Amino acid sequence: MLEVKKLAASSRSAGKKLSAALRDEKGASRWMCSEPLDPQIGEITVEDSANMTSDGIKLVFSAVEADVAKELEPRFAKDIAVISTASAYRYENDVPVFLPGVNWDHAALIDIQRKNRGWKGFISPGPNCTTVGLAMTLRPLDVAFGVGKVIMTSMQALSGAGRSPGVSAMDILDNIIPYIPKEEEKVEKETLKILGKIGPNGISLADMKVSCTCTRVNVLEGHTESVFVELKRKAGLDEVKAAWRELGKDLQALGLPSAPKQLVSYTDDPFRPQVRLDRDAEGGMSTVVGRLREDTVLGGVKYMLVSHNTRMGAAKGAILVAEYLTKKGYVG
Amino acid sequence: MLEVKKLAASSRSAGKKLSAALRDEKGASRWMCSEPLDPQIGEITVEDSANMTSDGIKLVFSAVEADVAKELEPRFAKDIAVISTASAYRYENDVPVFLPGVNWDHAALIDIQRKNRGWKGFISPGPNCTTVGLAMTLRPLDVAFGVGKVIMTSMQALSGAGRSPGVSAMDILDNIIPYIPKEEEKVEKETLKILGKIGPNGISLADMKVSCTCTRVNVLEGHTESVFVELKRKAGLDEVKAAWRELGKDLQALGLPSAPKQLVSYTDDPFRPQVRLDRDAEGGMSTVVGRLREDTVLGGVKYMLVSHNTRMGAAKGAILVAEYLTKKGYVG
Amino acid sequence: MLEVKKLAASSRSAGKKLSAALRDEKGASRWMCSEPLDPQIGEITVEDSANMTSDGIKLVFSAVEADVAKELEPRFAKDIAVISTASAYRYENDVPVFLPGVNWDHAALIDIQRKNRGWKGFISPGPNCTTVGLAMTLRPLDVAFGVGKVIMTSMQALSGAGRSPGVSAMDILDNIIPYIPKEEEKVEKETLKILGKIGPNGISLADMKVSCTCTRVNVLEGHTESVFVELKRKAGLDEVKAAWRELGKDLQALGLPSAPKQLVSYTDDPFRPQVRLDRDAEGGMSTVVGRLREDTVLGGVKYMLVSHNTRMGAAKGAILVAEYLTKKGYVG
Amino acid sequence: MLEVKKLAASSRSAGKKLSAALRDEKGASRWMCSEPLDPQIGEITVEDSANMTSDGIKLVFSAVEADVAKELEPRFAKDIAVISTASAYRYENDVPVFLPGVNWDHAALIDIQRKNRGWKGFISPGPNCTTVGLAMTLRPLDVAFGVGKVIMTSMQALSGAGRSPGVSAMDILDNIIPYIPKEEEKVEKETLKILGKIGPNGISLADMKVSCTCTRVNVLEGHTESVFVELKRKAGLDEVKAAWRELGKDLQALGLPSAPKQLVSYTDDPFRPQVRLDRDAEGGMSTVVGRLREDTVLGGVKYMLVSHNTRMGAAKGAILVAEYLTKKGYVG
Repeated sequence: MLEVKKLAASSRSAGKKLSAALRDEKGASRWMCSEPLDPQIGEITVEDSANMTSDGIKLVFSAVEADVAKELEPRFAKDIAVISTASAYRYENDVPVFLPGVNWDHAALIDIQRKNRGWKGFISPGPNCTTVGLAMTLRPLDVAFGVGKVIMTSMQALSGAGRSPGVSAMDILDNIIPYIPKEEEKVEKETLKILGKIGPNGISLADMKVSCTCTRVNVLEGHTESVFVELKRKAGLDEVKAAWRELGKDLQALGLPSAPKQLVSYTDDPFRPQVRLDRDAEGGMSTVVGRLREDTVLGGVKYMLVSHNTRMGAAKGAILVAEYLTKKGYVG
Repeated sequence: MLEVKKLAASSRSAGKKLSAALRDEKGASRWMCSEPLDPQIGEITVEDSANMTSDGIKLVFSAVEADVAKELEPRFAKDIAVISTASAYRYENDVPVFLPGVNWDHAALIDIQRKNRGWKGFISPGPNCTTVGLAMTLRPLDVAFGVGKVIMTSMQALSGAGRSPGVSAMDILDNIIPYIPKEEEKVEKETLKILGKIGPNGISLADMKVSCTCTRVNVLEGHTESVFVELKRKAGLDEVKAAWRELGKDLQALGLPSAPKQLVSYTDDPFRPQVRLDRDAEGGMSTVVGRLREDTVLGGVKYMLVSHNTRMGAAKGAILVAEYLTKKGYVG
Repeated sequence: MLEVKKLAASSRSAGKKLSAALRDEKGASRWMCSEPLDPQIGEITVEDSANMTSDGIKLVFSAVEADVAKELEPRFAKDIAVISTASAYRYENDVPVFLPGVNWDHAALIDIQRKNRGWKGFISPGPNCTTVGLAMTLRPLDVAFGVGKVIMTSMQALSGAGRSPGVSAMDILDNIIPYIPKEEEKVEKETLKILGKIGPNGISLADMKVSCTCTRVNVLEGHTESVFVELKRKAGLDEVKAAWRELGKDLQALGLPSAPKQLVSYTDDPFRPQVRLDRDAEGGMSTVVGRLREDTVLGGVKYMLVSHNTRMGAAKGAILVAEYLTKKGYVG
Repeated sequence: MLEVKKLAASSRSAGKKLSAALRDEKGASRWMCSEPLDPQIGEITVEDSANMTSDGIKLVFSAVEADVAKELEPRFAKDIAVISTASAYRYENDVPVFLPGVNWDHAALIDIQRKNRGWKGFISPGPNCTTVGLAMTLRPLDVAFGVGKVIMTSMQALSGAGRSPGVSAMDILDNIIPYIPKEEEKVEKETLKILGKIGPNGISLADMKVSCTCTRVNVLEGHTESVFVELKRKAGLDEVKAAWRELGKDLQALGLPSAPKQLVSYTDDPFRPQVRLDRDAEGGMSTVVGRLREDTVLGGVKYMLVSHNTRMGAAKGAILVAEYLTKKGYVG
């Protein structure tokens, strides 16, 4: 459905084939994905992102630091679609933050954004990876029972901090780092936007309260979250499981290549979800939930979830959004 | 202050010197503490706990499984003090669960227990290791501001599950286990008892609500807890820190050898407490707290804590209780 | 090529469907493979291995402890082929230890075994998992240049010790265990047998000397080995790489489903092989070698290798041997 | 014996008290030692190393990168003693590389160095941390039996690569990195120099051959080494243990505060040395050896050792050398 036409990076890599650009000066490979690099894509010559144009492409994926994104993304959005993992435009009123299967109706913001900014294209940033599993599991509960207070503690994977330098092994071995700068604010803010209602004047934030504590643990990939939720209407545990099961049924009908069968998968095994065993569920595109129990303190439920921070939580989630927007005619 | 007179174990070790009993059949040492074994204590011949009597001793430390404790501990409590880490008698109405510096007034239960059961001695079990840091940090908040709702997620160390077999390395590498059987119930129940008020008829449970999720992480020693607390009276962050600082000031005056200077130590470093760096604070006897923030969802505060599960949370906590009760005349 | 007809286990699992037998009493799954269980195989009812017969099957895979194998395997070998991962018969003179692509000519031992023991079937045990990568990489060097002295230090994965209890997490976190009972003797002995010459009277051990030290490290799957080899004839590094590349070319021609394209894969990246990144090369069926350097102390070469201990080193290696022997007419 | 008078660092820290210089811009502490910082030393104002003079001090410890050391160290050596952990001058003919208890007689090089260079002071760099345990254990064998060929594979701790950035946690979790640039060459070269004989014209390298492979494992502190040694004269295992036990007996007589009772400690527990349990033996100043076995391939012995790379292998080793040279009149 999507075809890679161009690749761009900093001037350091520009002019080299991707396969060559991925070798460092000591001859070591910097390709860190578990799948091998597609040899055809390895043959593409990397361009300098400062000079790359939108000629011949309809959509660009942007995965750069926020300050670079700030300048780079509008340059492309003038003409084509920009699907981004950067936070630079995430909090602007006319910019949607899509979570697949949860808020496709926010696409109405794209028209507002185009009008506001005089663009032919648009910017569509994805959510912070830690927000993904939380908002994905809250959405069906909010629709079915109404969500009030939410309290969440995360145990996040190393890959969220990047690889080089990322988290120093000396800091995390036999340890937990109890603070990830700016992360808690992002989750609290984005959840309300993603679950907000779209109207003619944009999004009105969801009417719930979210408080969280975000920590880093010695896990390679996949975020684990412990969630406590107040439900406005009393719900049996089976009703909650049913609500999760229904999420994204309409997504199935679209036949998007990257869409999972279940956006949220519930497991009855009391010792699951375990991040190493469950992060790759449906290619890392399904949020796995377990340990659902009644919570008498908030008046609602508590549960554990695992979601893959670099699959649905970043790169593959971006691709799924691109597939959706293409299908719906927003691209090209 | 305390002198080791006798050691007892199962019949498998009975009759051997401790130093010999600690070698397994392959010649490997089973002494797993970081301090070397005191050579004088290594010379003591281990007795069979089924036959050991209370002759010549005034106090026995019991660190056995709950079902063994059920039968063993009353046999000694008839005559002498039993300080236990087992849960067998923890939930009986006439049995105190001491948390040093927090509820010494529960010692009044010892008299009730003696009368009820016709014993000269008594049983004093310590709390579950996960309860220790939580109750220790809640106590000063409850006294100063009143605690309402409490939500806690723990990330617990391997040593809490024991060593052999304990947690299998294959299960925990690059992983989190989201369930520890019976742990959540223990914490929820014990916190209310420890923080309860003693009266002529025993303890009335604390008037608060506690909900928690307990997980196992790949950390050797020390439990980390993410805590959200509703405070009945509004409190500034500095007031909260001051309340923690004051806890246990009276304990200092007693000059007990195992007592820490600060039962609760607050750190302003935003990246602390880290379990590997902070678990050994004051020999593992101080609960280290950090990341204190206002919590607008519950109306109160949120924070992170680290407490050492096998020091204050088990063996050394038991010794401190023994020192206290000896000082106060309950032993001997 | 192979079809699963029957499954057997101890009496504890007998009578249950495999999918049910894999749930423990707490409801937790004991299926630990990364691939999901084939649902059709999950439907097979497990038999009691003490009663299972060879009716309707031509080949049995045996993966039990050595003492159980001692009695169980001959019962089947009377009539059908037994491919085993147990060590029980590994060192008997008339029993071949196949290493795919290395010593298929040892199949001549099967006839000797049948005659000696009056069996219609035979027992074919695989090598110890640590021997696999070593013997696989030594074989081409021995054929091309002659191998004299060999010195090897291994860093072995947790899965080699099994899961329950296996290695205790408390023992291996931030640690290395420098001893694996009986492992070094197995590697030293099996290498000489696998690389030995078959003659009319059986195998004559390879004329080389092997000394090794085997350690356990905190790695989930995949053994890493540091190897130093004396070569009887001087060889350039490119000649060595070429020799490795040629190994198993004839295996390709047979079209066996489980055979890798390269039994030995050489990498020029100076930071490889890395066990987490390379253990799954060709589905865990290829030994990945790197860091080839001249060794002036022994007079030869030194290198590092990674091989998957539970794929080529155990289960999938056994399947490949079964495929080969079936193709060659030894089965059925 | 030693008193800290001055501290110097880069201009970034200059002018701040040490305690302040150790806080980063986010308020996090960069003091990573397990012992708390001595408050008196925390009060010292850090100088700029580019401007610091040797006024008022007799000895300087240098722990900087090799290229900085190249310029900095001679500036001080003109007047005072420089004890360094940098490699800049390690391989110069008139510079000794002391290993405590092993080659004090190399102090004769100091006079040669002073004469050659016209210095009042001198430079004394310590060995690479991986060389320490190897040379320490080889020395008594060389003296008693003669050492020929040596083959060593190391499994080195994270702290050897520094902390920031150091080894990325994503690179080492569930992994081994099989290459540490320049490490093998250093060990092979330094071992021959340290064990070399001092004569009127300097050091003649030891007459042995060393080949090694150095790897990085997920261990916080402490290097583990698997060693195979050819002995020129046949030696029983008890003779080897006795030789190790004798090493450094003369060191005891000097009463140096940092000297361990045993430079080499042998353990009979077959599962030791384990790096987490043994690295801190005698405050990290003793090399712990175990698993001594005959090696029939080289004709000698094989064993495992653990030595602390940042204690005896770096900082505390440097202090012990300073104590020795002070005692012997080379300082001040």
